[in-house]
Amino acid sequence: MAKRIVIINGPNLNLLGKREPEIYGHQTFDDFAMMLKKEFPEHTIEIFQSNVEGEIINLLHNQGFKADGIIINAGGYTHTSVAIADAIVAIPSPVVEVHISNIHSREPYRHNSLLAANCKGVIAGFGLNSYRLALIALINS
Amino acid sequence: MAKRIVIINGPNLNLLGKREPEIYGHQTFDDFAMMLKKEFPEHTIEIFQSNVEGEIINLLHNQGFKADGIIINAGGYTHTSVAIADAIVAIPSPVVEVHISNIHSREPYRHNSLLAANCKGVIAGFGLNSYRLALIALINS
Amino acid sequence: MAKRIVIINGPNLNLLGKREPEIYGHQTFDDFAMMLKKEFPEHTIEIFQSNVEGEIINLLHNQGFKADGIIINAGGYTHTSVAIADAIVAIPSPVVEVHISNIHSREPYRHNSLLAANCKGVIAGFGLNSYRLALIALINS
Amino acid sequence: MAKRIVIINGPNLNLLGKREPEIYGHQTFDDFAMMLKKEFPEHTIEIFQSNVEGEIINLLHNQGFKADGIIINAGGYTHTSVAIADAIVAIPSPVVEVHISNIHSREPYRHNSLLAANCKGVIAGFGLNSYRLALIALINS
Amino acid sequence: MAKRIVIINGPNLNLLGKREPEIYGHQTFDDFAMMLKKEFPEHTIEIFQSNVEGEIINLLHNQGFKADGIIINAGGYTHTSVAIADAIVAIPSPVVEVHISNIHSREPYRHNSLLAANCKGVIAGFGLNSYRLALIALINS
Amino acid sequence: MAKRIVIINGPNLNLLGKREPEIYGHQTFDDFAMMLKKEFPEHTIEIFQSNVEGEIINLLHNQGFKADGIIINAGGYTHTSVAIADAIVAIPSPVVEVHISNIHSREPYRHNSLLAANCKGVIAGFGLNSYRLALIALINS
Amino acid sequence: MAKRIVIINGPNLNLLGKREPEIYGHQTFDDFAMMLKKEFPEHTIEIFQSNVEGEIINLLHNQGFKADGIIINAGGYTHTSVAIADAIVAIPSPVVEVHISNIHSREPYRHNSLLAANCKGVIAGFGLNSYRLALIALINS
Amino acid sequence: MAKRIVIINGPNLNLLGKREPEIYGHQTFDDFAMMLKKEFPEHTIEIFQSNVEGEIINLLHNQGFKADGIIINAGGYTHTSVAIADAIVAIPSPVVEVHISNIHSREPYRHNSLLAANCKGVIAGFGLNSYRLALIALINS
Amino acid sequence: MAKRIVIINGPNLNLLGKREPEIYGHQTFDDFAMMLKKEFPEHTIEIFQSNVEGEIINLLHNQGFKADGIIINAGGYTHTSVAIADAIVAIPSPVVEVHISNIHSREPYRHNSLLAANCKGVIAGFGLNSYRLALIALINS
Amino acid sequence: MAKRIVIINGPNLNLLGKREPEIYGHQTFDDFAMMLKKEFPEHTIEIFQSNVEGEIINLLHNQGFKADGIIINAGGYTHTSVAIADAIVAIPSPVVEVHISNIHSREPYRHNSLLAANCKGVIAGFGLNSYRLALIALINS
Amino acid sequence: MAKRIVIINGPNLNLLGKREPEIYGHQTFDDFAMMLKKEFPEHTIEIFQSNVEGEIINLLHNQGFKADGIIINAGGYTHTSVAIADAIVAIPSPVVEVHISNIHSREPYRHNSLLAANCKGVIAGFGLNSYRLALIALINS
Amino acid sequence: MAKRIVIINGPNLNLLGKREPEIYGHQTFDDFAMMLKKEFPEHTIEIFQSNVEGEIINLLHNQGFKADGIIINAGGYTHTSVAIADAIVAIPSPVVEVHISNIHSREPYRHNSLLAANCKGVIAGFGLNSYRLALIALINS
Repeated sequence: MAKRIVIINGPNLNLLGKREPEIYGHQTFDDFAMMLKKEFPEHTIEIFQSNVEGEIINLLHNQGFKADGIIINAGGYTHTSVAIADAIVAIPSPVVEVHISNIHSREPYRHNSLLAANCKGVIAGFGLNSYRLALIALINS
Repeated sequence: MAKRIVIINGPNLNLLGKREPEIYGHQTFDDFAMMLKKEFPEHTIEIFQSNVEGEIINLLHNQGFKADGIIINAGGYTHTSVAIADAIVAIPSPVVEVHISNIHSREPYRHNSLLAANCKGVIAGFGLNSYRLALIALINS
Repeated sequence: MAKRIVIINGPNLNLLGKREPEIYGHQTFDDFAMMLKKEFPEHTIEIFQSNVEGEIINLLHNQGFKADGIIINAGGYTHTSVAIADAIVAIPSPVVEVHISNIHSREPYRHNSLLAANCKGVIAGFGLNSYRLALIALINS
Repeated sequence: MAKRIVIINGPNLNLLGKREPEIYGHQTFDDFAMMLKKEFPEHTIEIFQSNVEGEIINLLHNQGFKADGIIINAGGYTHTSVAIADAIVAIPSPVVEVHISNIHSREPYRHNSLLAANCKGVIAGFGLNSYRLALIALINS
Repeated sequence: MAKRIVIINGPNLNLLGKREPEIYGHQTFDDFAMMLKKEFPEHTIEIFQSNVEGEIINLLHNQGFKADGIIINAGGYTHTSVAIADAIVAIPSPVVEVHISNIHSREPYRHNSLLAANCKGVIAGFGLNSYRLALIALINS
Repeated sequence: MAKRIVIINGPNLNLLGKREPEIYGHQTFDDFAMMLKKEFPEHTIEIFQSNVEGEIINLLHNQGFKADGIIINAGGYTHTSVAIADAIVAIPSPVVEVHISNIHSREPYRHNSLLAANCKGVIAGFGLNSYRLALIALINS
Repeated sequence: MAKRIVIINGPNLNLLGKREPEIYGHQTFDDFAMMLKKEFPEHTIEIFQSNVEGEIINLLHNQGFKADGIIINAGGYTHTSVAIADAIVAIPSPVVEVHISNIHSREPYRHNSLLAANCKGVIAGFGLNSYRLALIALINS
Repeated sequence: MAKRIVIINGPNLNLLGKREPEIYGHQTFDDFAMMLKKEFPEHTIEIFQSNVEGEIINLLHNQGFKADGIIINAGGYTHTSVAIADAIVAIPSPVVEVHISNIHSREPYRHNSLLAANCKGVIAGFGLNSYRLALIALINS
Repeated sequence: MAKRIVIINGPNLNLLGKREPEIYGHQTFDDFAMMLKKEFPEHTIEIFQSNVEGEIINLLHNQGFKADGIIINAGGYTHTSVAIADAIVAIPSPVVEVHISNIHSREPYRHNSLLAANCKGVIAGFGLNSYRLALIALINS
Repeated sequence: MAKRIVIINGPNLNLLGKREPEIYGHQTFDDFAMMLKKEFPEHTIEIFQSNVEGEIINLLHNQGFKADGIIINAGGYTHTSVAIADAIVAIPSPVVEVHISNIHSREPYRHNSLLAANCKGVIAGFGLNSYRLALIALINS
Repeated sequence: MAKRIVIINGPNLNLLGKREPEIYGHQTFDDFAMMLKKEFPEHTIEIFQSNVEGEIINLLHNQGFKADGIIINAGGYTHTSVAIADAIVAIPSPVVEVHISNIHSREPYRHNSLLAANCKGVIAGFGLNSYRLALIALINS
Repeated sequence: MAKRIVIINGPNLNLLGKREPEIYGHQTFDDFAMMLKKEFPEHTIEIFQSNVEGEIINLLHNQGFKADGIIINAGGYTHTSVAIADAIVAIPSPVVEVHISNIHSREPYRHNSLLAANCKGVIAGFGLNSYRLALIALINS
């Protein structure tokens, strides 16, 4: 069954491909998204990004009553935003939290996610592949 | 004496009436506000809502030098926003913090309000009635 | 509908009006209570005070099966008494916690109430007016 | 050898049988005590209850130099009373701490007993049966 | 009704009677168990001991679907084993946690049991008698 | 100038002379008080004792508006009573906190006094002599 | 390219399908594994389970120098085992940590994984599907 | 060499000169900036202000790849924003953190800056002069 | 019996009488010491001061085997010096810790003394009178 | 006098020489042990290794009543095993704790050893030489 | 107006230029000071260094009543010395705290300065340039 | 190869042999050092002691660029001195930390060494023999 999946990227993820390309490569998130859409042609994948906490909440409100699943990478807000965590509880769409890096091998304040408890599940550490796995999880659930 | 009271609602409070109506009822905050205005016809009651932390600060700056009192329900920002707490200190209008639910019987991170120390007082746990009590408190002070 | 509301004051609240009158004024709690009774003639308001933790528990047991609502200001026991918190859970009457001062702008150990989680709601920071607001809350609920 | 065992019940235990009978049953502590006395006719069993921390200390002082053993359920004071803990150290009678419920599966602040270190032993989680086991422990020691 | 009760002893309890006999006496756990079996001839009492955390889990799995009750003294694992705590939750047999010494009067890290929340109850401080009391509790429940 | 000094002893101090006499000696507090009165005949010394937290507050209220100084040994309440700490603030008489033993060389929870911040000063560790030093301090101040 | 993937299950996971079947269903891990093998016929999937922490280390040592990837669900050892974390660092095979449930919405002590920092990535909350996603992640990496 | 320096002011700094002028004076930040520009005519100084956390991130993204240096006073976000801290790491321009007041002599939660670790350096406590020192530091580096 | 008492003053106490004289008065410690010597002519009182932690240790070593008592005010080292605490344990002379101010009503880090546990007793809050009380305590002991 | 010294190696130490040889060298523990035995021909040196916590306890039980000294490197169990710590207390042989690396310059959770308090002494940071020093310490004691 | 500024360097700063010159360069603090004096010929700059905490206090006492400003880099004492913090409060000269490195990007125990609250301001992270900025700050204040 | 090894003893170690001789024996450190020198005639062993933290830093600076190894027992400064820890990092000579007693079986604040992370290794608990083992370690390295 064709599903409509929404990806919401949080702060600083717009710099992907531009920031330290010798490390992260030249692939922007848009390039990756295009690839993903080709790979899953039967499904609709929409991508949003904002650096503003409150706009991420707006996105969750707007999409969370109609999308079949939401993939969120809230960046730094993952560890500080009670308000986004509340928004995830408030909407019926299942939400999967993803992280490009393995947040558990970074600074201690990145080990704790305020959002995770309200999400269906968490996938971290697989690079951009984390989004692909989340997509598969939402499509098959 | 007729007073001008401003209500500022923070993140996710726009979903009231829409979110889990079997629990929270079908009354939206607009419905409730209308009722409140009828109940206190001699006073001016203005309502604002934003999911964006910085816009809540803007509202406090805009209203806090002219309103006779401000009622704030900062939602999840209550527990994380030093910036909103600073804004409350910076303005002359008295501010009352309200919460619909009893935040003390919820998750431990909701027990601590960063805003409360800078407010005139706090009212929590009486449902939408918390706003009415805050209104009475500000009108009579 | 006429209601019977009980006010239970805890330790040191008997000194009101006597202690530091240049700050707290010369109004004793009895004066205030008289005023309150006049203001709400259709309801019965009874006032109790004790400095003894266990007697406050006794009062909750005695009143908590027959009063239509209880307003409690447990003073210093607010922050230390698991036993009073247990008593509030054990009785069917709804209990509202009040504080004269804004406990959140005082010493850190006053920010946490052991009782609040078991009460219907909390009102703090409005001076003796906190009791009036609690009364209104209980009468209208 | 016939022994004289004293049971001291702390705050809120006087409500047993009255409070939430659909859960706790209609058996009061007096009913249970009567049963216990019949079961152990060769021993003397005396029961005291108080909601006042200091009166519990008085009871320990009065009984602790002559009883063959004391069973204490200090209710909420278990977790907050250094003064009762000191009283237990001060008396020669062996004291056994009991709890009706399994305090370890309740709120975190109930996991720690200030009294336990000064008691002979602790029994928790067996309903009113906890008292019976404590009685057997004291009779056989 | 005849019951089948299983006792599971954890690390270092095999040294009983051998270790510091001037303190603990020359009675081994086997001696004590023999005594216990004579005392309760109508019931079946089986004893297991292992120093290996995972074997204690195996024992709980093997016995926990057929025993009428399990008495566990997990020794040092009491304070560190989430895995044993999970095993207790997974089996239908009621489990009672016992300790020979009063763990509350020893080092702080012994005051907290990871297992207790998942057990029916806890008995500590009565020497080997703690096992007898647990047996009585399980037989009569 | 003749002064009226009040000594308030808290929980368990009534057992002095009775409790472990081989350690604490056979001198009761009454014996010691008699000695003290003889030593300072020009001053009035009154002694009160209670095991009840709230009665200690009552004593502070009753004496704290007329005594020239109060010496308090609140025993175990020293470390747990916000309510007594509040009572000390509420009265005009200067209060000196004393302890017979050196509380800093005992259990960690005895290192912190909730009362000390509100007292004029603290004297600990000199046996009953701590009271004598407090008396000298209050007489000469 | 055909890969050899090893799944290592830790304590209590052997009870799957037997434990609380009305909740977890009647599917055992063996059933699930069989399904998985059919789904990925070009790859070799081997499954091990042990309740013993040290045997899990042995498995990591034995497989970690030859497998193309390891999927580990260390159950309760996830939160307590420095030794397993060290074993993961010591081997060249990439390791993915999985959890059936969303550990972030359970008890606080389950929020922290000692293993995660040493793994390639973490997948939690998707039921048995978590293993499938980990398999895809390892096959495609 | 002429440099282009960007100043980014965070929440509530727009109120400078308006808020409590008897304390902070009547000088607005614009007045101060004008003065600064005159003092350093060979350099370009641009000033931005926002109360919105995400817009501060946008500003860092927009300026951080072309400015010769950035001076940031993130106000209350200094102590709570992992997202701004991440943005500082992501851009090549050197960033200096400034504070008007000495944050170390204020509330404890202001002692810790989440941004400082990612900045070149920190200057605090010199009033508006902190900006001038930061400017000198960036021009000379 | 004539005694030889040594007073050791730590860091910053040499500024007494010079520092903020409108608050602390113009009395230097030398003036006070002279007064004290006159008051207790039968005893020898020697005074030392050093701002150097290690020299305070030297003083304790030099005096601690021959003085009849030592009064120490270690100033800021009170809260940080394990080395001075060790020196107090190493010497046979009884040591009394004094403080001019009530350290319990100051910053939290001043509430804990590392030295107190090793001293005979502690006297704090009586101004320079604290030294006099300590002297009396040592003379009479 | 010839002594019998037992070395017990814990988890992951079996990988020595195999794991990251470019860092740790190609010397296995067996090679090192052979060298050690040649160096101290008059003494008996026996070596055991296990990855299983409970087997390490078994080894301590088996050897701890007959060896003249035990050298233990408990690897990751050093920081988590109350049960091994209890086993060390239970046996009469002196035990020396060794570590190859300097555990104090590694992750914070490696700074604390649960075993050290029960050992005779601790040697850490000298590579395999730590074992040699421990051997000398035990032979000469 | 010509000012007299004193620089006080704490422990290990005497090694500058000698210690790891490939990293820190061959410039000693004396070389840097000479440069600074040339740059600000109208002002008097005096430099002191000591590795002894108490001598730094002596320097503050000696200079703090006559210098127009003090620049202090207390090295490791920054994080541990209550006594130096007290000395800064005791003197009238304004004190600026400087650090060569950005202490916020180093070990956590370097993030907290005990001195900062008592200083006029703090400058950290600009290499030796931090001293120059502090000098400018003190000259212009 | 002949080596020059320096021993630096910190506070209170000068009292060895004098302090509690019935416990520590009559052997002074000088006696022990003489013995040590005889035992290792081919090496130069120099001994320094100071009670002053800063002088220990001076000793490290003076010796740390020419000694082949340094053995330090910093006494109480072990647990409090960031400044000594910094000095150890600053010098090229390898430093070994020793303790006479087993610091891990003493007070909790002695379990953590601030110096250890910067030393080559740590030896504790072997009495004066700890120095001998450190000497062997440095000679053989």
